[in-house]
Amino acid sequence: QELIDSISRKLQVLREARETLLEDIQANNILGEEVEAIVKEVCKPNEFDKFKMFIGDLDKVVNLLLSLSGRLARVENALNNLDENTSPEERRTLVEKQKLLTQQHEDAKELKENLDRRERIVFDILANYLSEENLADYEHFVKMKSALIIEQRELEDKIKLGEEQLKCLTDSLQPERLK
Amino acid sequence: QELIDSISRKLQVLREARETLLEDIQANNILGEEVEAIVKEVCKPNEFDKFKMFIGDLDKVVNLLLSLSGRLARVENALNNLDENTSPEERRTLVEKQKLLTQQHEDAKELKENLDRRERIVFDILANYLSEENLADYEHFVKMKSALIIEQRELEDKIKLGEEQLKCLTDSLQPERLK
Repeated sequence: QELIDSISRKLQVLREARETLLEDIQANNILGEEVEAIVKEVCKPNEFDKFKMFIGDLDKVVNLLLSLSGRLARVENALNNLDENTSPEERRTLVEKQKLLTQQHEDAKELKENLDRRERIVFDILANYLSEENLADYEHFVKMKSALIIEQRELEDKIKLGEEQLKCLTDSLQPERLK
Repeated sequence: QELIDSISRKLQVLREARETLLEDIQANNILGEEVEAIVKEVCKPNEFDKFKMFIGDLDKVVNLLLSLSGRLARVENALNNLDENTSPEERRTLVEKQKLLTQQHEDAKELKENLDRRERIVFDILANYLSEENLADYEHFVKMKSALIIEQRELEDKIKLGEEQLKCLTDSLQPERLK
């Protein structure tokens, strides 16, 4: 019961952190819209296009990278926890999955590297038009955008873990009460 | 036994098709290297950079898209084949997976759309420098590159399926022979 209370309190804190994080994301999105409006006004259409494409690809590639690292970590964890009772078949399936995910993870990392280069290209374009302050806003927006996605993912994982632990514990206590 | 022979023959044909496909891929890669050498010579460094990034992202995004459609199809297939014996827990897990994969698949499709726009941007750049013939080579190379990846994936899936069917059949015949 003590453990349940402790996990419940931890979950409460995590959920409050999630609220704050969602506000931060909201605020950053508003900053992004402001930057976008300025870029649209001062840049050539094809340059604005590049800006939009880069921003649009940013969260997709970051999300993809996080999802693949998560899956890879889970498969590697499963592989490390195999015991002698595991069938060779099961082990083979896991090893194959690990190989596939490692390749996809490498691909996603390369996509991210190219995206970082595109970030610098867009920065160089914007540097021709924007004031120092607006340029700083752009940089801040881009940096925060990926940082917030990463933070959100970590928080969601922790909340999910806590909820599972809590469910496990209450389930295990249930029979005792019924006895 | 007849079925085994038939599947074995089909596998043989598929493996020969794979050989031919690998030669096509090889030939297309050589064409790509030739185009790249010309682009490097005639374009500005930042334009060559854009070309390289686009080519590099192309197979990664296409592979990603194929892998996600494949996983999504498998999960949806599993969901359609659930029977009354399936636990609600299991069903919930599958539905959650489907939701996640659908979102990732949407993201990958948007990455691909942006990539198609980048293809046109690179084409417009190259059109300023390349002869009509070299430009046609570039277009052919890019179109074939994704087409060959898709074909390769389909072929590998068919071969894998055939091998599994064959294994299943030989396994099921084994005990009879031992009797």
